[in-house]
Amino acid sequence: MNYKTEKIKHLIVKKPLKLDCGQTIKDFPLAYETYGKLNKSKDNAILIFHALTGDQFASGINPITEREGWWNSAVGPDKSIDTNKYFVICANVLGGCMGTLGPKEINKISNEIYGLEFPVITIKDMVKAQEALLEYFKIEKLLCALGGSLGSMQLLQFCASFPDRTFSAIPIACSSSNSAQNIALNELARQAIMADPEWSKGSYGKVKKLPKNGLAVARMAGHISYLSESGLQEKFGRKLQEKAGYEFSFDADFQIESYLRHQGYSFVDRFDANSYLYLTRAMDYFDLSKQYDNGLTEAFAGQKTKFLVISFSSDWLYPTKHSKDIVIALNASGANVAFAEIKTDKGHDSFLVEEPKFLNTIKGFIDSSFEIFKK
Amino acid sequence: MNYKTEKIKHLIVKKPLKLDCGQTIKDFPLAYETYGKLNKSKDNAILIFHALTGDQFASGINPITEREGWWNSAVGPDKSIDTNKYFVICANVLGGCMGTLGPKEINKISNEIYGLEFPVITIKDMVKAQEALLEYFKIEKLLCALGGSLGSMQLLQFCASFPDRTFSAIPIACSSSNSAQNIALNELARQAIMADPEWSKGSYGKVKKLPKNGLAVARMAGHISYLSESGLQEKFGRKLQEKAGYEFSFDADFQIESYLRHQGYSFVDRFDANSYLYLTRAMDYFDLSKQYDNGLTEAFAGQKTKFLVISFSSDWLYPTKHSKDIVIALNASGANVAFAEIKTDKGHDSFLVEEPKFLNTIKGFIDSSFEIFKK
Repeated sequence: MNYKTEKIKHLIVKKPLKLDCGQTIKDFPLAYETYGKLNKSKDNAILIFHALTGDQFASGINPITEREGWWNSAVGPDKSIDTNKYFVICANVLGGCMGTLGPKEINKISNEIYGLEFPVITIKDMVKAQEALLEYFKIEKLLCALGGSLGSMQLLQFCASFPDRTFSAIPIACSSSNSAQNIALNELARQAIMADPEWSKGSYGKVKKLPKNGLAVARMAGHISYLSESGLQEKFGRKLQEKAGYEFSFDADFQIESYLRHQGYSFVDRFDANSYLYLTRAMDYFDLSKQYDNGLTEAFAGQKTKFLVISFSSDWLYPTKHSKDIVIALNASGANVAFAEIKTDKGHDSFLVEEPKFLNTIKGFIDSSFEIFKK
Repeated sequence: MNYKTEKIKHLIVKKPLKLDCGQTIKDFPLAYETYGKLNKSKDNAILIFHALTGDQFASGINPITEREGWWNSAVGPDKSIDTNKYFVICANVLGGCMGTLGPKEINKISNEIYGLEFPVITIKDMVKAQEALLEYFKIEKLLCALGGSLGSMQLLQFCASFPDRTFSAIPIACSSSNSAQNIALNELARQAIMADPEWSKGSYGKVKKLPKNGLAVARMAGHISYLSESGLQEKFGRKLQEKAGYEFSFDADFQIESYLRHQGYSFVDRFDANSYLYLTRAMDYFDLSKQYDNGLTEAFAGQKTKFLVISFSSDWLYPTKHSKDIVIALNASGANVAFAEIKTDKGHDSFLVEEPKFLNTIKGFIDSSFEIFKK
């Protein structure tokens, strides 16, 4: 897939960015997309942070994959995040693979693909990079910033680092640090990728190989964790794959098997295996409370932002407990915070699918925030 | 590892066994171990069905791996399953890799290692094979039969197929059929194995290769599912691996990463990758209710066996709901059934570890069963 295309907008971030690992990057591309129009008073801007396998193409048709944008359910004209009314910005994260500097890009110093030479980046690094977009658009204060999963980590970091840069914020299916089980699931995915000999110690780009199998298995593991037990049971149960009975083989007899294989192998055409390593690593390293002597409460001290924290009842990857810990800390720091647990069997992925209760909730919150915030 | 050793006892099952897939096997080895002594009245025999990665060496030191037997916590002199008092039998399952006929054995017809030429076997096939052991020892009726996980599936099948062959039964962490999530997790493991080029379409034995990476990743996935979120958090949390801070690399920074890698790669020395495929397939195919027109209730009709069903509160692989469905069906069929949910954070693996509440419960049940049953 050609990412060096006019279909991708790039901001070249000139200012040196000192990464948490100690290295400094500068003059690097930050790929982004916008939807809707920024109004004159610049009070209708919404920043969306994407999740692990997302990119800047939140709405409409992704011009690279030619599939629906990952948040088409929520973002677009007359949708919950209404692009007739709001100016929506979404950037590909640092370390990603849709045009922003990441492990599959060329290292200008060696003139070779980075691979594992790419520095290990953190959520904080991602957020710092994206601040450049606000400067570029000369947006002093966003109307709203929001994101789910990895996107919520960026959002929490953004709010902690810039306590007055957004009027409102919606962390969704969020966590302020990965649990041991979360890290284990990410490590499983990384091990699956690194176990593939085609991965070639991360240098597959240089040696013209592709760790398809490893990445597909990693994606399958991720996919299981994004769905709930009851959701899977409801949708697939023990239904067979257009067969009268068992075939007594290792082909896909059950629909769930066929579905998983499809999810795994269709993913490898649109995602970079090393990016998967870097982004999961950033999630594992993220621990907002550790950045402050007094933990999460201090992280949110002096917040001017109005928060709505949203969790999903059947999300076992970032269960409601993770959200509640954040709500408690926000309250302890005196922040303006509301909390909603949406009852659904759609698991962690609930924010990515048509879930009316969720979509109505964010619409109401954003619209009412705009009523207060607009000049 | 040499399994053709005098350390493994074999029963050669001469009687032809018609498998569910349609094929017939005969004159095949069934590897087994016994602990304790069968008394003269033959009323002190206990049959243990092992789980996915277990084998016949439940107690003491496994002479092949030279590690502790997989159920050493429960089986041995003066332990819950007291081998001073009871005669314990445990057989390696059909399709396994510790001496019983399975995909890593030689196909007598082709004189080559079976690999995927091995027939796809079912739980019912496993149970039928093991019945030969009771005939061999001339045990008309067992005092107790028990097993956890895959072992519980064998046990439920055993009780349904032979309603008067054991006086008591303890299905542990059990299920009468895999859910979509269970199948998905098994399929993830199979895909990890089959994605490894060393797997060689199942013929690695013939071509002198070994899909170590694939099997290790499969084991890691399994391991995550055997432990609970809270158990992992309690034991590992975000503890670092003897490091002052993050190393900004893909080495194991967190203890949980190191633990998972160890679990994965130590497994490949003692288990056969194709066996892993066959045994998980047997679990996925198992659906006891489908064997009877009127479902589970009919499966248990006419039961003479006294049941104790045990689940673990933090088991998310076979949660208590699976056990309760079995208890309901046993009650509906008029069987003698007790049920205990053990509160523990040790997850699905609770039955394999030192969990006093569990160990005391099975001890009490077996000892009191013996008081009633003994002649």
